[in-house]
This record gives sequence, C-alpha cells and structure tokens, in this order.
Amino acid sequence: MNIAGRPTRTIRPAADGAAVEVIDQTRLPHEVATLRLAGLVEAAAAIRTMVVRGAPLIGVTAAYGIALAMGEDASDAGLARAVATLAATRPTAVNLRWALDRMAAALRELPPGERREAAWRLAGEMAEEDVETCRAIGRHGAVLIGDAHRRTGRAVNVLTHCNAGWLATVDWGTALAPVYAAHDAGVPVHVWVDETRPRNQGAALTAFELGQHGVPHTIVADNAGGHLMQHGRVDLCIVGSDRTTATGDVANKIGTYLKALAARDNGVPFYAALPGSTIDWSLEDGVAQIPIEERDAREVTHITGRGEDGSLVTVGIAAPGSPAANPAFDVTPARLVTGLVTERGIAPASRAGLAALFPEARGA
Amino acid sequence: MNIAGRPTRTIRPAADGAAVEVIDQTRLPHEVATLRLAGLVEAAAAIRTMVVRGAPLIGVTAAYGIALAMGEDASDAGLARAVATLAATRPTAVNLRWALDRMAAALRELPPGERREAAWRLAGEMAEEDVETCRAIGRHGAVLIGDAHRRTGRAVNVLTHCNAGWLATVDWGTALAPVYAAHDAGVPVHVWVDETRPRNQGAALTAFELGQHGVPHTIVADNAGGHLMQHGRVDLCIVGSDRTTATGDVANKIGTYLKALAARDNGVPFYAALPGSTIDWSLEDGVAQIPIEERDAREVTHITGRGEDGSLVTVGIAAPGSPAANPAFDVTPARLVTGLVTERGIAPASRAGLAALFPEARGA
Repeated sequence: MNIAGRPTRTIRPAADGAAVEVIDQTRLPHEVATLRLAGLVEAAAAIRTMVVRGAPLIGVTAAYGIALAMGEDASDAGLARAVATLAATRPTAVNLRWALDRMAAALRELPPGERREAAWRLAGEMAEEDVETCRAIGRHGAVLIGDAHRRTGRAVNVLTHCNAGWLATVDWGTALAPVYAAHDAGVPVHVWVDETRPRNQGAALTAFELGQHGVPHTIVADNAGGHLMQHGRVDLCIVGSDRTTATGDVANKIGTYLKALAARDNGVPFYAALPGSTIDWSLEDGVAQIPIEERDAREVTHITGRGEDGSLVTVGIAAPGSPAANPAFDVTPARLVTGLVTERGIAPASRAGLAALFPEARGA
Repeated sequence: MNIAGRPTRTIRPAADGAAVEVIDQTRLPHEVATLRLAGLVEAAAAIRTMVVRGAPLIGVTAAYGIALAMGEDASDAGLARAVATLAATRPTAVNLRWALDRMAAALRELPPGERREAAWRLAGEMAEEDVETCRAIGRHGAVLIGDAHRRTGRAVNVLTHCNAGWLATVDWGTALAPVYAAHDAGVPVHVWVDETRPRNQGAALTAFELGQHGVPHTIVADNAGGHLMQHGRVDLCIVGSDRTTATGDVANKIGTYLKALAARDNGVPFYAALPGSTIDWSLEDGVAQIPIEERDAREVTHITGRGEDGSLVTVGIAAPGSPAANPAFDVTPARLVTGLVTERGIAPASRAGLAALFPEARGA
C-alpha cells in the first residue's frame, strides 16, 4: 500500500543481497524509517522489540532471518540455532513457528552449500504468498462490507482492534484487507480505530496506514467500542488473529475479547481475518492452551510520543512506584466469532467450518 | 485518607473563609498541588477542566461554588446564574444537579443577606454527609470482600475502573471505600487498576491513592480485564457510578460496560458503589436516556506525563491528522450488575431493589 503516495512493503531484500530492509514500526507514526537487518541476531531483535510485528509479518521476517543465518553458518547446527533463536522471540503468534518449520524442512534436505541461496528464494516466495493470501482475504471480506452497505444505504462503520493492516503483513493486511478492497471498489467505509493500549498500534499504525490510503477513520479509546455498538454506530467488527485453534478460538491483541462480547450483546457481526498459517491445528481450547505473552510493565507505565518540537519523548504516565502487568493477547472463544475470513473464503468459527476450507489439515 | 502519611481531603474551606481549596487532580500523580477557588467562575472551571472530578466531589464542589457565588451576588438573579453556570459544566453526573437543586431550594427561602453564610454552612454539611455516606458504602461493601476472602482463603482480587476512590469524593470514595474498609480490617485485598484511557484516572489517581494508603495493586491496560477474568484472577469487580437510573442501569466511565460483559461471561460478581444522590429517579432506560458527555479529541491524541527530568510534558501519540472521538461515559444495563452498594446497604440492580432501600424516593 501507499506511504506518501508511494507503493511500499513492510519488508524487502536489500539491493545488495546482504540484508533485509524493514520499516521500523516502533517509530511510526512519527517517522517513516527503514532499518537494515544484516544477520540472525538483528532479525531476532527486530521481532522481539516489535520493529516488525503482526503475525504474518513476523513469519516472513523469521523466514528472512533464516536466510540471513544461512549466510553466517549454513551447517545443521547453524540451522538449528537459527530456528531456536527466532522461535524464542515471541510466544503467541503461531505463524512464526509455521514459517520456521517450513524453512527448516526445506533447507535440511539440502547440502549446506546450497542452503543460503535456497533460503533467500523460499523467504521471497513466502513474502509473495503472503501478499496474495492477504489480497484473497480482502476479496472475501469485502463482500461483507458491500453487503452491509447495500443493507444500510450509507457508509459502513467497521470497528477494528490493534493493527492487522498492511503493516502487520507484507502488504494489504488481514483485518484491513477487506476495508482496502471495499474502499478501492468505491464502497463507502469508515473505520473506528481502537487505539490499542498499551502499545497503541491502533492510534499509531492503523490510523497512519488508513490515513495514508485515504480511508475515513476515527481513533477511539479501547474503552469506547461497547458504547458505540450500544448506539448502533458499528456495523461490523473485523480483527486479526495471532493464533487460531482448530475449533475457531482466536488469540489476538489484548482487549479483542471485550469487543467480541460487546458485539454479541448488541447483535453486531464479529469477524477475525487470518491466513491459514495462523491456524494451530493442534489446539482445541484457546483459553486453556494458547500461551499468552507477558510483556514489560514499562509499556503500560510509560509512553513515547511527539513533543512540541517534533522530537520523540518518553514520559511516565502512572503513579510512581505502582506495579503494572502487561499481558499482550487474549483469547476470544469461537462462540463469539461470527466467522473467520481466510484466503479460501469465510468459514464458521468451528472445527467443521475450518476443516471444510482446509481439508488437507484435517489430520494435523 | 492519607497522602504521604497525612490525612487529607479533596476539598475544604480556606482558612480565611473567602475561598475553597482543592487538590488539583490534573497534576496527580506527578505533583500534589492545592488550588484555591475564590469565586463562581473558578469553581465552574475547576469542574469543567477536571481539576476536581468524580460524581460526589463534583456535587460538593458545586455546593461550595454556590457559596462562593453568594459572596459575589446573593440576589435571586445571582443565585439563578450561579446554578446555571455550574449545571452547564458536566452533563453526565447527576450529583451535580442534585447538589445545585438542594442548595438553591434552601437559599431561595432566605433573604439575600443571609444566603452567603447559609450557603457555606450547607455546603459544609454536604461535604460531611458525603464522608459519612462513603464510610457507610465502605462498611457494606467490605462484607463482599470479607466473604470472598473466607471463600477463597487468599487475598481477594478486586478489579476497578477509573477512579471512584477518595479522590472522587471528599474522603473514603465509593468503589474503593469497601477496599479501604477491608484492608484496614486486615482482610488481604489486591486491586487490579484499569488505567482508564483516555484520561488515565486509574493509573494516575487510583494507583496513587492505593499506593499512598498501602493497598497492594497492579495497573493494567483497560484491555486486560477480560483476560484476567477468563483466568480466574478477578474475584469481584467494583466500580462507581456517575448516574444510576431508577431501574439500576449504571452510567460510569467509558469502558465500564465492557468489564461488566466480561464479568457476566466469567461468573464474576459485578458491583457498582454509589451514594443515593447518584440515582436519577426520573430515568428508566440508561442507554436511551442518560446524556453522554463527548470530550475533546485531544484527550485521546495527546497525553501528559513526567519526562526524565521530572517536568510535565505533553506528547502526541496518534497518527498526525487522524481524527478522534472521545465519549466519556457508557451505560451498563442493570441486567449485568450483581448489586448496587449504597450507604443504606446493597440493593439488587432493579427498581424494586432500589425502591426498597430508598422508599422516600418512590414517588419521584
């Protein structure tokens, strides 16, 4: 999608073939800075510190991380170490594991001397696949927005949480892909953007990318969604997913569950949009089984923003000395999810619904 | 309650009898500053800009505002103007209206020459009543915490939203009065403090006052409560109320409704603690009838905190140019409320429940 009118992707191989370049998302929306990742350690740090974030983009970055590692040590031990290093960066998103498994399975078959080149090629293929997957999610999900427009005859109000836009993927996004597809097709759409504390991915990233693409939107505190739904101001919710169980439970940014409860209480359809790679076919019960990352309390007690002179300043916003807890995800049970928008179509949030779209995974 | 070990109230007449002194809550937790309100205009501004906030404290400040106004113009026109000026400051909290009606009714009976002295006396009485009311709420609500402790045999985890502590009243608080009463009685209690975006009254005020009083607590993003409840980490929720319908619907800080939904979904008892003066006996349907204040979008897009050098700095935290909306309250329907903790005891959240405790209001 566009930044300042120029088509941009979140990640790409550097021109010299020795590194990957990513948008440093910790500096958005204040600065659009590109960061060069030249090795395994840098790739792992970029994921851990959320320079790159979003389940699909984490997966692709991990794939490139393996490619970088193969330039450093292409032995079996080097491959195993690279997989372990990258797998340890973030615990909740399953795409990370999926991407690493796929890279490792392909590379293990090859002699070490061929691994580097093969790794770059496969990572590039996975990036292109991600773009096509997101484009397909957009095509399927845009139907929901078009239907809502035909039903209401006015701009469709979509509420989203966190950032599952193109910045969370290579391009297009998951939850926002339907919004971009509908908007580009001329369907009037307006997005309620949850600011998404504590890291403010909504106010910082979702609002930024919607603004750059010209999609009408309004930032609200995470607290506001229930009130908006009570007053008929939300037509549908679409969120992303960091991990989806085989039964349709959705782990997504902390606070998603609260919006799903409000949607059900007010008869608002609630969708999660996700690539098949986000489905963890080994899990049945998301609340009990999905590990929830606990992040630094300082993300709650401090915040970085733009001072009056334009410089970035970090300020303390909590009572000094008070402890904070920072669980990063929650699980929305399938019973609260109207449907799962995937690259293969929209499935009911159930084992049968997912298995019908992904029959090859049934045995997993 | 205590600040730095010294018993403090949020509001008191100045020693010279010509003003009232309040804690400037816009500077907490960074500074404990006292602000002198010397006239009607200053009292109204203090309410409007949230130097004082919290339904009970707004009511008492308005009462003192009338007293200040009577020193400026004690005529019938002056009284009417003072009531109108103060009534226009905040639309949602009904205590404001209640306090103004009570002051005006008493003063209108008196000749202008006697109004000033009577107004100071009545405002003082209302402040003392507020303290006693909150103390009684604490006594009744502490039973819930004590029962939970006996049931579980461990520290009771209470989740609260916004600040309905002593800083929202003259002393003791509403939602936090039971916590203080239980803590002071030796019942182990820990409070999950919702930070309460966009104005962060939880992280800034609730955490501050709990910390000053030595009550164990942990700040969490507003998004986290559902996750905590899913995992059995909340024993009960207690919030305040800015306006309660005769049928038990509760208007409180935006986001309260989301926590009530999560509480119901997880079998966690959900209480609102409120003085009888918060009940609007004229209303039946809170969602349809209670006016919801829409505040400045800048409260969402900017935040003030403590820089590294200790100075207060305001930073922009949203994508530049993106609009924001800022509804300040939402309504939690009575069906989601386990009970209403009042100065007269705990009532079911229903017309019958409230009428049984406040029989004199039945005809209202």
